[in-house]
Amino acid sequence: MSNQGATVAPSSAPPIPSGPPPKVTSSGRSTDPIATTNSDSTDIPEFEPFGMPGPRGYPPMTEFLDIFDVDMMKRPEEINKKQHHTDLYNSVDLIVRRGQEFQVKATFNRPYNPAKDKFAVEFVIGTSPHYSKGTYIPVFPNKERLTTWDGRIINNSGNSVTIGVTAAATCMVGKYHMYVAVMTPFGIRRTRRDDSRDLYVLFNPWVKEDAVFLDDETERQECVINEIGIIYHGAFDDISERNWNYGQFNYGVLDACLYIMDRAQMPITNRGDPIKVTRKASAMLNSRDDDGVLVGNWSGDYTYGVAPTSWTGSTDILISYSRSKMPVCYAQCWVYAAVFNTFLRCLGIPSRVVTNYYSAHDNDGNLKTDIILEESGRIDRARTKDSIWNYHCWNECYMSRPDLPQGFGGWQVVDATPQETSDGMYRCGPASVMAIKHGQTCFPYDAAFVFAEVNSDVVFYSRSREGTMEPVKVNHSHVGRMVLTKTPGDTTRRDITDQYKFPEGSAEERTVLEKAEEYGCHREKSDPPPADVDLVLPSLEISIGDDFELSLEFVNKSDERRIVDAYVSGSVVYYTGVTAAEFLFRDPMVTIGPKASVKELVVVESKRYMKHLVEQANLNFIATGKVRETGQIVSVMKVVPLRNPKLSITLSEGGRVSEEMTVTVEFTNPFSFNLEGVYVRMEGPGLMLPKVKYYSVIPGGSSLVWVEYFSPLRAGNSRMFATLDCPALRQVHGQASVTIQP
Amino acid sequence: MSNQGATVAPSSAPPIPSGPPPKVTSSGRSTDPIATTNSDSTDIPEFEPFGMPGPRGYPPMTEFLDIFDVDMMKRPEEINKKQHHTDLYNSVDLIVRRGQEFQVKATFNRPYNPAKDKFAVEFVIGTSPHYSKGTYIPVFPNKERLTTWDGRIINNSGNSVTIGVTAAATCMVGKYHMYVAVMTPFGIRRTRRDDSRDLYVLFNPWVKEDAVFLDDETERQECVINEIGIIYHGAFDDISERNWNYGQFNYGVLDACLYIMDRAQMPITNRGDPIKVTRKASAMLNSRDDDGVLVGNWSGDYTYGVAPTSWTGSTDILISYSRSKMPVCYAQCWVYAAVFNTFLRCLGIPSRVVTNYYSAHDNDGNLKTDIILEESGRIDRARTKDSIWNYHCWNECYMSRPDLPQGFGGWQVVDATPQETSDGMYRCGPASVMAIKHGQTCFPYDAAFVFAEVNSDVVFYSRSREGTMEPVKVNHSHVGRMVLTKTPGDTTRRDITDQYKFPEGSAEERTVLEKAEEYGCHREKSDPPPADVDLVLPSLEISIGDDFELSLEFVNKSDERRIVDAYVSGSVVYYTGVTAAEFLFRDPMVTIGPKASVKELVVVESKRYMKHLVEQANLNFIATGKVRETGQIVSVMKVVPLRNPKLSITLSEGGRVSEEMTVTVEFTNPFSFNLEGVYVRMEGPGLMLPKVKYYSVIPGGSSLVWVEYFSPLRAGNSRMFATLDCPALRQVHGQASVTIQP
Repeated sequence: MSNQGATVAPSSAPPIPSGPPPKVTSSGRSTDPIATTNSDSTDIPEFEPFGMPGPRGYPPMTEFLDIFDVDMMKRPEEINKKQHHTDLYNSVDLIVRRGQEFQVKATFNRPYNPAKDKFAVEFVIGTSPHYSKGTYIPVFPNKERLTTWDGRIINNSGNSVTIGVTAAATCMVGKYHMYVAVMTPFGIRRTRRDDSRDLYVLFNPWVKEDAVFLDDETERQECVINEIGIIYHGAFDDISERNWNYGQFNYGVLDACLYIMDRAQMPITNRGDPIKVTRKASAMLNSRDDDGVLVGNWSGDYTYGVAPTSWTGSTDILISYSRSKMPVCYAQCWVYAAVFNTFLRCLGIPSRVVTNYYSAHDNDGNLKTDIILEESGRIDRARTKDSIWNYHCWNECYMSRPDLPQGFGGWQVVDATPQETSDGMYRCGPASVMAIKHGQTCFPYDAAFVFAEVNSDVVFYSRSREGTMEPVKVNHSHVGRMVLTKTPGDTTRRDITDQYKFPEGSAEERTVLEKAEEYGCHREKSDPPPADVDLVLPSLEISIGDDFELSLEFVNKSDERRIVDAYVSGSVVYYTGVTAAEFLFRDPMVTIGPKASVKELVVVESKRYMKHLVEQANLNFIATGKVRETGQIVSVMKVVPLRNPKLSITLSEGGRVSEEMTVTVEFTNPFSFNLEGVYVRMEGPGLMLPKVKYYSVIPGGSSLVWVEYFSPLRAGNSRMFATLDCPALRQVHGQASVTIQP
Repeated sequence: MSNQGATVAPSSAPPIPSGPPPKVTSSGRSTDPIATTNSDSTDIPEFEPFGMPGPRGYPPMTEFLDIFDVDMMKRPEEINKKQHHTDLYNSVDLIVRRGQEFQVKATFNRPYNPAKDKFAVEFVIGTSPHYSKGTYIPVFPNKERLTTWDGRIINNSGNSVTIGVTAAATCMVGKYHMYVAVMTPFGIRRTRRDDSRDLYVLFNPWVKEDAVFLDDETERQECVINEIGIIYHGAFDDISERNWNYGQFNYGVLDACLYIMDRAQMPITNRGDPIKVTRKASAMLNSRDDDGVLVGNWSGDYTYGVAPTSWTGSTDILISYSRSKMPVCYAQCWVYAAVFNTFLRCLGIPSRVVTNYYSAHDNDGNLKTDIILEESGRIDRARTKDSIWNYHCWNECYMSRPDLPQGFGGWQVVDATPQETSDGMYRCGPASVMAIKHGQTCFPYDAAFVFAEVNSDVVFYSRSREGTMEPVKVNHSHVGRMVLTKTPGDTTRRDITDQYKFPEGSAEERTVLEKAEEYGCHREKSDPPPADVDLVLPSLEISIGDDFELSLEFVNKSDERRIVDAYVSGSVVYYTGVTAAEFLFRDPMVTIGPKASVKELVVVESKRYMKHLVEQANLNFIATGKVRETGQIVSVMKVVPLRNPKLSITLSEGGRVSEEMTVTVEFTNPFSFNLEGVYVRMEGPGLMLPKVKYYSVIPGGSSLVWVEYFSPLRAGNSRMFATLDCPALRQVHGQASVTIQP
């Protein structure tokens, strides 16, 4: 080379590339893009030759089987959908569950001769199907070749063969395509791709081998098949119900659920694992990070979407998401939980919505909720930053936990509500309920977080002028007061608090809290002695717009006289416990004789609170005080959910499948003011898809009457639900039960 | 009301709101936005009155202490930085570690009288500081009032008081501001905010109470203080070294590390927990999801950024990210690990970079890596989708694990390299190394994933024409062949494989694999008997451009003759094991006598591989075959990293602090072709900040000489590193050691 030995000088500036930067690829990183969509699958050729053809091409293959017809036996009244508990899905395709045999019938050009003819049914899912990845599964009707799915001949008569296929109980859940393939010495001849041979394979709580096996038919019917939801809200001593149409069988909902996993780019190969599916879905049900299904909004302004309180079911939300590919506005916790429940039931994972009353929230797994008092004993609202949600809804789903030691399978908490202040955690669970009960917060996923939601202490601090603070009262029983879910097969509620916690004060409870502390949950260590004066607020049932009296009782348990400087505060709060406005304040000085009690009456006029009401119309009363003789702090808190007016729903008599019926929704504005921008929504499982009507104004005292016609789709018990929602009045609902004859 | 009893009609269409939709707020969700930035803090007023002033205003407060001056004692030669091991940080601010006393000196208008005067030093971090959140910390110099940080008077003479402050060993890590406050009966009088009283509080491996306590001075010096990194790559039997300047003490790096947490919107209150800090950082070091620090690129095309092989240290990357607020291009695993290491050491968390040779990767925690063979025994490249990385780098960091049972503290794996095909997991760890060793894969975070990276089996399948596959060979020892890190206090390597795994074939190893299987790791169950013929490939040390011979040995262990139909394939691979191009193929038939061995020589000419070379110039040889007599499959695989030409670096003699020196970088293009678009980068810890030079072309046989002037910043041993990088030749480096006299 002529350059040998020459020295080069540096250039002044590196060249600047022109044009847009190339898309960064990972071609050197992996051999093949990973399949992450179930909406598409790679086609397999109709003829796959073995080696090269001879000089004259392939011989005529008339001696081998030719496939004339394939019957997926997919009508709801046929054996497959009945036996697989999938007959309620409104879908023309075959839908089966894994680990359980289904039948398909192949018709050939001549009778099948098992001794001579070789054929297989083949299933593929996703793009680039591969045997080693479990995305291409050949099934042979004889036992010669074993593959992960079982096959057998059930019937061989005339030119038709009925084949029984059992998908592996661990296989991927989603949409497959089926081929019938005949082996010849020259190659494989198979059916041309045709959408009619698409089939869906779901989780199967009915078979032992499936990780979601649930050994109780009543529970399975409730947690997989039931579409009618009851979600509890209000307060633990004044429980309200919300009806919800999960609609997991409605047309398009199953495809929408698969789309959610596609949108999350979840690898197809992970879709057989209920742990991974539920964890991914807990992230995707909220729009944070990943443009998931629902946008959270707790602001009170829902102008640009549907108010969380206005939804009646999941169908509209899921269909809208899968069609528009855009997050749906708006949700709060029960909407996340209800739509998540639809997703889980639709895919066959047993699930239920639960409500935790007084839920410690947004505190990043801390076991303390801090309330700051001034030296006088009055609440320092500016410095009290934590809030306790009146209630919080999440989901439980049922599955084994092979990733944990024995004994932690069963119900698992998953929560799709984004936790605003936690460390970027916009997914939660699955966390074993058993692990939460036993304080085994070290087990994945997020058990410590859920543990705190049901076990936090409320710590009252007294703040000195110089800024130092001293814990003066610790309430161990306020948070996680009660956990409720719907009773399987019934419309009553079921208290499942004991599945989350041992009884208060029990030895087990103490052990569990110590265990959780070992795993890094921080508790308040100091335990100031309880005061000898108790404050008591009675339970109240108040309708919106009522004037009422609050009777605050001071009980002196000591043998001496006590004087309490008390502060009584009434405020309108969001269901998150956040204060919207204080509408009442009193600071009585109360003198109580030894072993006596005194009632302090506080009159609450509706005109004081009506103008401040937000959303779910909750009033929060907090009384705190300082005992002069002892300096001890006393306190009591109570949430009073105001009762809303009801919608009246009336159904016509004698309902029969496919015969027209009427439903009448009626509402009278009970207030002296106008209601503006009113939406009324209505739907009923198996009765009617969601419908909405808009009223620009309902003057004070006026009524609306909405008559709607519908034809029931199927027989059995159902309900029609409706909601009415407008900025000045939210969360008005009504429902009516009906039995449809076949 | 006149409307009483009227019925309203629905409106035809709801109104369409005009203008852009309002920003959704969470005003009803939380009382206060959570503080997630450390770059800003709320100021506290200079005078905070107690109650209202009287009718004449406040009285003159001449009798109370007035603050004249505050000395943070922050010069490197003063006591604070020396004792806190922070004197190397290039920063004008005070930098201390938590759980250890530091001193500040306050000067008043008159002598301080402990009996009469009351003052405090106050520390605040982030916006909306609150005592109950630990973001506002008053420290009293006497024991009257206990707060979480300790204070005492060390010296009181003249008008000056020296105060000793000990930050709680669990306090948040980051940038604080300090005030001095004097209490008067009328209110609090304090210093005006002034940046000179900013201070940084870091993790402290030197004190027992800190979660990152590491009880070994040599390890601490290496894993916190050492800036010179050696990162291993190449192959387990031909190890190469890469030098790296972590640069954790360089100007601006500490602020850049805090910015990373700000950018992640990590709540300030979580920043004292090394588990949360390291987990968050593992997500933020890569740009996936969250616009984190580094963009991964394995494509070979780095036109629009810096080639991963070209970086010499972390400083440029971190400074560029914090200035531009944009992800930096480009990284591969060692760049992620090296920059993560800087982050950890800079904040005071002991950390090291480790290299795992033959790392199972991108397989979502599966314990199997599949290789598909045709019926003949030849590799089916189209169907072999898994790859084994020649090596993979991650980090270990040292901390207690209060969230896990006893015994799982110590070294924890964290990994910032995004795992492409795993379920959206763009963060990994901290996973306890002890838990990985014992198969306790149920413990958070991601232990199962790391377990698979060091423990996967390589499974060879034979694929029949009909598509069914049968495992024919399982290799249990290929993956996780060796784990290396740098020896503390030395420049040699340390084999830490035994910290991850029990010896192969031991009883403990079997128990661990069973335990991991219990927790859901899937292994190949079948274990085909090993063939009685072994294939052996020798270790090779080849320089780029060399012709060489590959001697493939067939060893017959049986008493009979054996004939093997063998397939020898040579390909150029990325370090990820992905094939770029096959450049050699032979299919010899080899006959081996009983108990004999035969060597098959394969000549490899450089002209065959040179044109295909990518990146790190790795050749991969795979030989497979089928024994005719037994049908058994034999195989051997070997990666041969080609040796690159070196850069020569020469330093001038007799280096002294602040005296100018010269460094000379020399390189000769040894090839017959031109090198185009060449970047040379150079830096040295404590010697010189990163510098870069560009050469548009280095003709074949030509040389470059780059002479640079610099003045060492500090005394001691150091190194100067340089890299040369261009599309046709990557990963050329050189280094020179030097001792600087004071």
